Amino acid sequence: MASTATTLKGQPLDRALLDSTLRRRLFYTPAFEIYNGVAGLFDYGPPGCALQANIIDIWRKHFVIEEDMLEVDCTVLTPDEVLKTSGHVEKFADWMCKDPKNGEIMRADHFVEDILEARLAGDKQARGQKVEEDEDAAAENSDKKKKKKSKAKAEAVKLDDAVVQEYEEILAQIDNYHGDQLGELIQKHDLRNPTTGELPSHPVPFNLMFQTAIGPSGHLQGYMRPETAQGQFLNFAKLLEFNQNGMPFASASIGRSYRNEISPRAGLLRVREFLMAEVEHFVDPEGGKKHDRFHEIEHIELVLLDRHVQLSGKTDLKKMSIGEAVKNQVIDNETLGYFLARIYLFMKRIGVDESKMRFRQHMANEMAHYAADCWDCELLTSAGWIECVGCADRSAYDLTVHAKKTGAALYVRERLDEPKVIEEYEVDIDKKLFGPRFKKDAKAVQAALEDTNQQERECYGKTLAEAGKFTIKVPGVGDGKVEITKDLVKIERRKRTVNIREYTPNVVEPSFGIGRILYSLIEHCYWTRASEGGDEARSVLSFPPTVAPTKVLLVPLSTNPAFKPFVTAISKKLRQLGISSKVDASSATIGKRYSRNDELGTPLGVTIDFQTVKDGSLTLRDRDSMVQVRAEEDKILDAIKAIVDGTKTWEDVEKELPRFVGQELEVEVR
Amino acid sequence: MASTATTLKGQPLDRALLDSTLRRRLFYTPAFEIYNGVAGLFDYGPPGCALQANIIDIWRKHFVIEEDMLEVDCTVLTPDEVLKTSGHVEKFADWMCKDPKNGEIMRADHFVEDILEARLAGDKQARGQKVEEDEDAAAENSDKKKKKKSKAKAEAVKLDDAVVQEYEEILAQIDNYHGDQLGELIQKHDLRNPTTGELPSHPVPFNLMFQTAIGPSGHLQGYMRPETAQGQFLNFAKLLEFNQNGMPFASASIGRSYRNEISPRAGLLRVREFLMAEVEHFVDPEGGKKHDRFHEIEHIELVLLDRHVQLSGKTDLKKMSIGEAVKNQVIDNETLGYFLARIYLFMKRIGVDESKMRFRQHMANEMAHYAADCWDCELLTSAGWIECVGCADRSAYDLTVHAKKTGAALYVRERLDEPKVIEEYEVDIDKKLFGPRFKKDAKAVQAALEDTNQQERECYGKTLAEAGKFTIKVPGVGDGKVEITKDLVKIERRKRTVNIREYTPNVVEPSFGIGRILYSLIEHCYWTRASEGGDEARSVLSFPPTVAPTKVLLVPLSTNPAFKPFVTAISKKLRQLGISSKVDASSATIGKRYSRNDELGTPLGVTIDFQTVKDGSLTLRDRDSMVQVRAEEDKILDAIKAIVDGTKTWEDVEKELPRFVGQELEVEVR
Repeated sequence: MASTATTLKGQPLDRALLDSTLRRRLFYTPAFEIYNGVAGLFDYGPPGCALQANIIDIWRKHFVIEEDMLEVDCTVLTPDEVLKTSGHVEKFADWMCKDPKNGEIMRADHFVEDILEARLAGDKQARGQKVEEDEDAAAENSDKKKKKKSKAKAEAVKLDDAVVQEYEEILAQIDNYHGDQLGELIQKHDLRNPTTGELPSHPVPFNLMFQTAIGPSGHLQGYMRPETAQGQFLNFAKLLEFNQNGMPFASASIGRSYRNEISPRAGLLRVREFLMAEVEHFVDPEGGKKHDRFHEIEHIELVLLDRHVQLSGKTDLKKMSIGEAVKNQVIDNETLGYFLARIYLFMKRIGVDESKMRFRQHMANEMAHYAADCWDCELLTSAGWIECVGCADRSAYDLTVHAKKTGAALYVRERLDEPKVIEEYEVDIDKKLFGPRFKKDAKAVQAALEDTNQQERECYGKTLAEAGKFTIKVPGVGDGKVEITKDLVKIERRKRTVNIREYTPNVVEPSFGIGRILYSLIEHCYWTRASEGGDEARSVLSFPPTVAPTKVLLVPLSTNPAFKPFVTAISKKLRQLGISSKVDASSATIGKRYSRNDELGTPLGVTIDFQTVKDGSLTLRDRDSMVQVRAEEDKILDAIKAIVDGTKTWEDVEKELPRFVGQELEVEVR
Repeated sequence: MASTATTLKGQPLDRALLDSTLRRRLFYTPAFEIYNGVAGLFDYGPPGCALQANIIDIWRKHFVIEEDMLEVDCTVLTPDEVLKTSGHVEKFADWMCKDPKNGEIMRADHFVEDILEARLAGDKQARGQKVEEDEDAAAENSDKKKKKKSKAKAEAVKLDDAVVQEYEEILAQIDNYHGDQLGELIQKHDLRNPTTGELPSHPVPFNLMFQTAIGPSGHLQGYMRPETAQGQFLNFAKLLEFNQNGMPFASASIGRSYRNEISPRAGLLRVREFLMAEVEHFVDPEGGKKHDRFHEIEHIELVLLDRHVQLSGKTDLKKMSIGEAVKNQVIDNETLGYFLARIYLFMKRIGVDESKMRFRQHMANEMAHYAADCWDCELLTSAGWIECVGCADRSAYDLTVHAKKTGAALYVRERLDEPKVIEEYEVDIDKKLFGPRFKKDAKAVQAALEDTNQQERECYGKTLAEAGKFTIKVPGVGDGKVEITKDLVKIERRKRTVNIREYTPNVVEPSFGIGRILYSLIEHCYWTRASEGGDEARSVLSFPPTVAPTKVLLVPLSTNPAFKPFVTAISKKLRQLGISSKVDASSATIGKRYSRNDELGTPLGVTIDFQTVKDGSLTLRDRDSMVQVRAEEDKILDAIKAIVDGTKTWEDVEKELPRFVGQELEVEVR
C-alpha cells in the first residue's frame, strides 16, 4: 500500500532503515530464520520483549486495575464443539483464490487491492503525477530470505477518469466484500496474477483456525483459539458468582491467539501467532447500556470515520466529542463510547502519536451479524491505517448460543427492588390428551407451543376463541403444520408478580492486538538525526520512559578498572529502585555507545568518568536532546526516578541541575 | 499415589476440602466445564491469575534481572524440520498401551505404578498395617464431571516379603524403564486392567506433541512447542551478537508449552497446556564449567537424592552443601551447582516449605542421551514428590545439531590472548588426479578424507608411508570401502599459529513448570482453623505478601453510606502505592468476609468503621494471627507498604501500633 508515512519529527520515514535498525537491535526477528523462516512468525528479542512487557503492564494498570476487572487466563487449546457453537468453525474464514498455472494461493481481497492500487499508480505515472514509494514493498525486498511473491508493479497506463473513481471507491470499502463479489471484481476488471498473467480461481472460504487433535485417540478435534473471548464467556457464571452477583462487571484476559493467515505480510502487522489483550464488559441490555463513569470521559474528542462516510466511498475524518457522538447515535451507546475513550487514553499513555490515530466504524457487511456496533482504533503507519484495537458490542450473542447448546445458566438473576406485576399470555397444555392425540410427536408439538411469543399467543388465543382451533408450524411433524383444537390448550392473559428478573447480559468487547500496537508505536516514536560527520542518518526511538525497554544506560568512560565499582554500585541502586538499567562497558567510543543506545530507545544515560572517581558525581544524558547535566549521585538518582515515574520531565531536571559539556570531547582528546 | 501430606501447620491435608476451596474461590477451574471439560486443560480465575503473575514477576527479578539475562519471546508454532533436528519428532514420546477389550488407552508407566501400588496397599491391609488414604483418588472423585477411569483398588492380599521388596524397587525407579521393559513387567507380574481384567497391549511410543498444518496449502507440518528452549537455541547467534560477543551469558523465556499427555490426571500437576519459564545458560565447555558467582552460594545446603541411591531402589535423602557436592562430583560442575542453589533460593523466596523440597538426580536412562547431568527440584504434595523444576546440563547437543542441519554459525569465536601454536595432522588432496580417478564419487571420497580425526590421520599416514596406500570407509561408494594411493594424498603433521578459538558452548538449563510450582505452593501455604463455633474447619492460604494475589482487603463495617468515601480514598491511595487491594462491601458479617478473604490468601485487612468516620483511624488485620491494630491512616498505609515490600513483618508492626479488639463483637451487638 502506498504511504506517506513520516517520523516523529515529520521526516519521510525510511522503512528499510527502520527495519534494519529493529533487526540489528533484536527488537524482533523472523522466527526459525536459520531454517529459512516461516511466514507470519516472529520472535521478540530482549528490547522487543521488554517493550511488550511494559505495554502489557500499562494495559493491566489502565484497564484491569483501574476498573477492577476480573482477569482470567484460559487455555489456547479449544475443543471444536465450543467453536462450532460460537460460529468460528463455519464462519471464521478469509477468501482465498488460486492461480491455475503456478498454484500460488492468494488472499482474494489483498489480490484485488494490490492490482487496483498498481493500476492507479500507473495512471498517476502516465499523468505525470508524483507516485509515493511503496514502503511495504521496499521493506519486503529488504528481507532477503522472503520467498518471491507476486506483487503487482505499476505500469504507466492512463485510465479513464470514471475508472479511476470506480477503483478508488472499491478500495475505500475493500473490507466490505463477500467472496462472490471479489470474484466478480476479478472477472469484471480482468485482474490477472502479474507472475503468470492468469485470472485466479473463484474465491473460496479458508478457515483461519489451526486445527489439532487432543488426546491419544485422535478423536477429539480441537483448535488453537482465534481470540481469548470464548474462554471468558464460558466462565461467565463462575465470574458472576465470584463478583458476588454484582453487575455490570468486566473480565479481561491477556494471551496468545492464532490465525492461519493465507499469505502473511507486512512484518508484525499480519502474523499467525500474536498476543491479545481483551476485555469482555458484561452489561444489562435494558436502559440504553449506560455507563456510570461516562461523565468522566464525555468531553474527550476523537477522530471518527463513520460507516456512512465509508459507504459513500470516502475517507473524510471528523472530530467529535464522545458525548456528542453518543447523543447523535454516531456511536451506539454510552458503554461503547466509554471504552473508545479509554482506548484513546491508553494509546496516548503509551506514547502513540495522536495525529496518527482514528476510530473507524465497521460497515454492516464487515461486522459479525450479531454485533450491534463496532469501531476499530486505527493507527497510521508506513503500511497505511492499521486496525490495532477492535471495540465491538457483541450483544448477547455468545452467552446465548453457549447457554442454548449446553444448558448452562449464562444469565443474571436480579432481585427486583419492588415486585413487578406482569400481565402476559400463558399457554396451559392438557397433557393427558396430548400424548394420545400426537403420540411420538407430542413433545415436539408441546415445545412449539411453549416457544411462542406474546404476539403469537395473542393471535392464537383469538383464533381459538373464534374458530375453536388454530394451526401452528412444527417442523418435522407431518407436513410441518399441526392443528390444535380448544380441548388441548387454554391461552389466557394473566397477571403474576415477579420478584426476580432474568436477563442475558450484552457484551462490549475492546480487543487489543499487542503486536500491531507495539509496531505502530515504534514507527510513531521513530526519527533520525544526522551523525557528527553529517553524512549518515542515526536512528532514534523516542519511547516515553514508562514504555522504554530499558530506562538507563550506564556507560563507564573507558575500560579503566577504576570505574567498575561505581558501575556495580549504581547498577545495584537502580535495581533496588525497580528501574531497569544496562551497562555498556565495551571499548567503543562513548559517542558510538550512546548512539547504539538511542537506537534501543533508552531515555537516559549515566556516564561514570574520572570526575566520578574523584568526587562521586555523575552525568545524566537525555536521549532526545543529547543534553547532559552533572550532579552528585543522589541527585542524579532522584532525577532518574522522577522521570521514570513520570513526576518530572527532562525539562524540569535540566532547569534544576547544572549543565555539563565535554565528555565526548574528552574522549577524542585522550 | 498414597501420601502423608500435611498442611502448613502439620495437620493432615484434606485434599477434597482444599480442592473445593480452590474451585469455589476460582483459583482455577476445569476449562470448558459447561461442555463437560477436556482432561488436562484448566483455566485460572482472578486469584490464580494474580498468583501466577506474582510468581512470574519474582522469577523475572530473581533470574532475568539479577543475572542480566537476555529475555526472548518466541513462537509456539514450530515447523517440523526444527523438531526433527532436535530429536523431538522421533523421541519425545511416552509409552502407551491399550486395553484389548474396551479400547482404553493408558500410559504404561502409570499403569504399572497404579497396579503395584494397589497390590502393596492390599498387602499392608492383609498385614493389618495402616494404609494411607489415596489423596489423589479422593480429589479425582470430588470432580464429578470427570470421566470414569480405571484406577486399581487395593484388595487385602498378603504378598511374599521378596515380592514386596521387588515391587518397591520397581516403583523407586519407575521413571527409568523403556517401553519393552514396561511390557515385560506387565507380563511378568500379570498386571491386568482392573476394569476389564485384561492384560493391556505391549507398550508403543506415543508422540506428545500437538501437530498442526501451517499455511493454506496444508503442506507445512508444524507442532506446538513442547518446551521454550528450541527458540532460544535457534536465536543463539543473534543473542551472542546482541551481548557484544560476551560469554558466558544466558537467555530466558517465559511462555506456554504443550504436551499431549496420554491420560492427564492430578489437576494442575499434569496438564496439556502449561506455562514454563526457562533459562538457557551458555557456557564454555573448557575449564570445568566454572561459575564466577559460585562463591556466593557454595555454603548453601540442599537435600539431595542422587542417582546411586535411587539405583539401589532406595529414596534416602542426604543434606549437603553445594560446594561439597560439586567437589565430590555428586553434582557435575559449578554452573549446574550454582543454578541448583538459585532455584532453591527462588523457591524459598516465593514461600515454598523448605522441609518439602528435595533435589533428585536423573538416572542414566531417564536423562536425554546427550545430557551430562540433570537434577529435578521436587516438591512434596498430596500427590507425592512432584518434579517442579528440571535443571539439566544439555551439553553442546542442541547447538551442534541445529548448526549441522542448517549450516548456521552457532558457535563462539574467541580471540586468544596469546596466539597458540597447534601441531596437527593435515590432509592435502591432489584434486587434479581425484576427479579422473573417482569420477562421480570424487566429492564423497574427498569429504570422507576431510572428516577424519587426528587419530585416524596418524594411522592412515603411517600406513601410507609403509604400504603406499590405505583403505577408507565411504558409505555408498562401491562396496563402501575405497583404496587411496599415495599419489592422491599427502598426510603430514604440521605446526600452525591460531589467533581465534572456535567452540560450541554447552548449555545449562533450569526449566520451571509454573503451574506445578503454583499448585505445590498452594498446598505448602494451606492450613485450616476452627471456626468460631468450632464445628467447621475454615481454609486459610498463608501466602507470603509478595506472592499473595491481593495484598489488602478493604472492609467497610456495614453498608452504611458514610463509609464509602473512605473506602474510595484508601483504595486510590493503595493503587498509587502499587499495592493491589479489593473491596468487600457486601452485606455479609465482617467475620464471614474476613474468612472468605483468608481463603483467598490476602495477608492484610483494613476495616473502615464508625471510628474511622469520626477520626480517620483504621484497623489493620493480620490474616494468620487474626490480630488487629488500630492507628491513623498514614501509619496504617506505611505499615502495609513495609509488609508488602518485605521490609517489615507483621510482628514488627504489631509491636509498633496499638492493638485493637472488638470489631467483630461490635457487629454482633449492632
